[in-house]
Amino acid sequence: MNENKKHNFGAGPCILPESVLCQAANAVIDWNDMGLSILEVSHRSPEFESVVLKTQLLVRELLHIPDSYAVLFLQGGASTQFSMIPMNFLKGKSVAAYLDTGYFAQKAIQEAKHFGTPVIVGSSRDKQYNYIPDYYDVPSEAAYLHITSNNTIEGTEQFEFPTQGIPMICDMSSDIFSRMVDVRKFDLIYAGAQKNMGPAGMTMVIIKNELIDTITHEIPAMSDYRVLEANNSLYNTPPVFAIYTAMLNLIWLKDQGGILGIEQKNIKKAMLLYKEIDENPLFYGLAQPAHRSRMNVTFKMYDESLEKVFLTFATERNIVGIQGYRTVGGFRASLYNALPIESVQVLVTVMRDFAAELGLHAPLNDLQGAVGLARQATS
Amino acid sequence: MNENKKHNFGAGPCILPESVLCQAANAVIDWNDMGLSILEVSHRSPEFESVVLKTQLLVRELLHIPDSYAVLFLQGGASTQFSMIPMNFLKGKSVAAYLDTGYFAQKAIQEAKHFGTPVIVGSSRDKQYNYIPDYYDVPSEAAYLHITSNNTIEGTEQFEFPTQGIPMICDMSSDIFSRMVDVRKFDLIYAGAQKNMGPAGMTMVIIKNELIDTITHEIPAMSDYRVLEANNSLYNTPPVFAIYTAMLNLIWLKDQGGILGIEQKNIKKAMLLYKEIDENPLFYGLAQPAHRSRMNVTFKMYDESLEKVFLTFATERNIVGIQGYRTVGGFRASLYNALPIESVQVLVTVMRDFAAELGLHAPLNDLQGAVGLARQATS
Repeated sequence: MNENKKHNFGAGPCILPESVLCQAANAVIDWNDMGLSILEVSHRSPEFESVVLKTQLLVRELLHIPDSYAVLFLQGGASTQFSMIPMNFLKGKSVAAYLDTGYFAQKAIQEAKHFGTPVIVGSSRDKQYNYIPDYYDVPSEAAYLHITSNNTIEGTEQFEFPTQGIPMICDMSSDIFSRMVDVRKFDLIYAGAQKNMGPAGMTMVIIKNELIDTITHEIPAMSDYRVLEANNSLYNTPPVFAIYTAMLNLIWLKDQGGILGIEQKNIKKAMLLYKEIDENPLFYGLAQPAHRSRMNVTFKMYDESLEKVFLTFATERNIVGIQGYRTVGGFRASLYNALPIESVQVLVTVMRDFAAELGLHAPLNDLQGAVGLARQATS
Repeated sequence: MNENKKHNFGAGPCILPESVLCQAANAVIDWNDMGLSILEVSHRSPEFESVVLKTQLLVRELLHIPDSYAVLFLQGGASTQFSMIPMNFLKGKSVAAYLDTGYFAQKAIQEAKHFGTPVIVGSSRDKQYNYIPDYYDVPSEAAYLHITSNNTIEGTEQFEFPTQGIPMICDMSSDIFSRMVDVRKFDLIYAGAQKNMGPAGMTMVIIKNELIDTITHEIPAMSDYRVLEANNSLYNTPPVFAIYTAMLNLIWLKDQGGILGIEQKNIKKAMLLYKEIDENPLFYGLAQPAHRSRMNVTFKMYDESLEKVFLTFATERNIVGIQGYRTVGGFRASLYNALPIESVQVLVTVMRDFAAELGLHAPLNDLQGAVGLARQATS
């Protein structure tokens, strides 16, 4: 363990497991004793084709993906999917349905306008996106319903997914691999890799073959799911290093007990931090409790003038990446898979210490603890 | 130097300098003693914004790019540029002119058909693309002329560039940074990074601001040069590691005497190999001599039945990546910037040794050398 190592709460690109970083660094020097760097191997080599295959198999195994879906590794980020989805599926249809749950959902809606009419079937804009709309009526003629399972910037997460009788498309960029979801409820899932999957520069698409079969019009090759699927993500030179490092990271995830194993750890980490936010007299959470994200915890201080001071206080204690997104302000602590619970404990301690330095009473649970210790000492 | 190190003639992703690989590997563990991996830093951090800026400045300095051009780092490979270019510039115009010099030029032409009418103003298809057409008449109403400066698969390279009075667009994927070109002759230059720039997963676009200003129609954000330029390549999460490693590689290139320095080395490497191809009785070159690429040397054996045997012979001597592209066959030795001349000497020796093992006379220049040595010994 690097002693200088920071507690990295960044929203993405984000923390990756130290063992994965070591293996990736070794492969940059000499991959599998081949005498070649992973950066120097041909994407058409049998060795790299095995990497693509193994990464696909790991994704299928971890998420229990049926054979009726394809798994693609693409470039361009989720932002490119925002336009590829309507380019492939909205053409010739009247409308597509979108759930408006935040900044990135809005971006997806904007891109759909280039290809047809997006209809917003529910929105939490009225309350600064601090919740997930729980009822929405989707036009049956809609080409698809697009939702965002986790809103990275606002710190909300959707835990129940409706069945609507039309193709369900979900941006899972910031909570993929953090919890078990029933892939069969979706027709297309996409995710930028730079949270729980691997480094920046790769985007995963899980798409039902039946949905691919509905595409019949001409589309530029690099935007055409038919072409990308038929070429098994190797239509052109793929982001070799990002795919390789994602494979290492998914092997690590499997070793953690797979998604069910990591989900339990993620629940504990989120509970620990939300508990402190609720109990510490200085802080309050932004998301409504039922819709609180386990991945991105957004919070502010009652006294906003203290936020800069707290940020410095935390930074001096090796905490990085907790500044809130520029449109939201306050703080955002991202608790992705690779963040150890010890880092959350450090953050919680820093929040308590900061309150103590201000001469405020320690939070209730600590007072109870202190009372208990005092009793033991005098008994 | 790794003793197991191979002589890597791969066409891309290709060899990178060993010092660059070491620095990149170190940064994967701990970048600049920050206590964070380069894979874990936010793309919005001042540290990474400095990397983008420094990489841009290096590109400008090395290629003498005037301020009237923007330098962008994108995703999706040159294949994505094949459609982005007509999407941005062909719309509303009658035709765009294309020079058909090989496999990738053909791909660019195919993608243009989604947005308008590409007109082929010259083609070397009649001779398996073994030359660059030297005269072509471009319609004055064409939106632009698209050329491919180096044809990776066929092994031809264009050394003179015409002025046509319409925007000049050039795919320089496989010879960018290998020789000095006058950027001012072009309105848009693009290149996949995975040859002379860095690892796979990044694409560079050098675009004249005046050309960007001609775009007036609606385009999806990730395909809109206006958006990408206005956001300085940070519209969404960029391929952080690929950009960082490209920066390291361009610093290395500067230390080699810049492009003029590397160009002299590249000329020597190419001359050495072409000389052997011309003199060795077993081999012949595919490209016409005046259009021979310095980056990708394509050749075959007069007796095709020997090609598999030679490939094994070379592989046993630590040579990798010389198999020809599937549609061309034979061999292709790529001599990118980072390939040392020593590797070319090894390949040349292997070609001679193979001829000698077959009991063929040594090539003429060796016989002359042997005669000279014999004379010295007896004089």
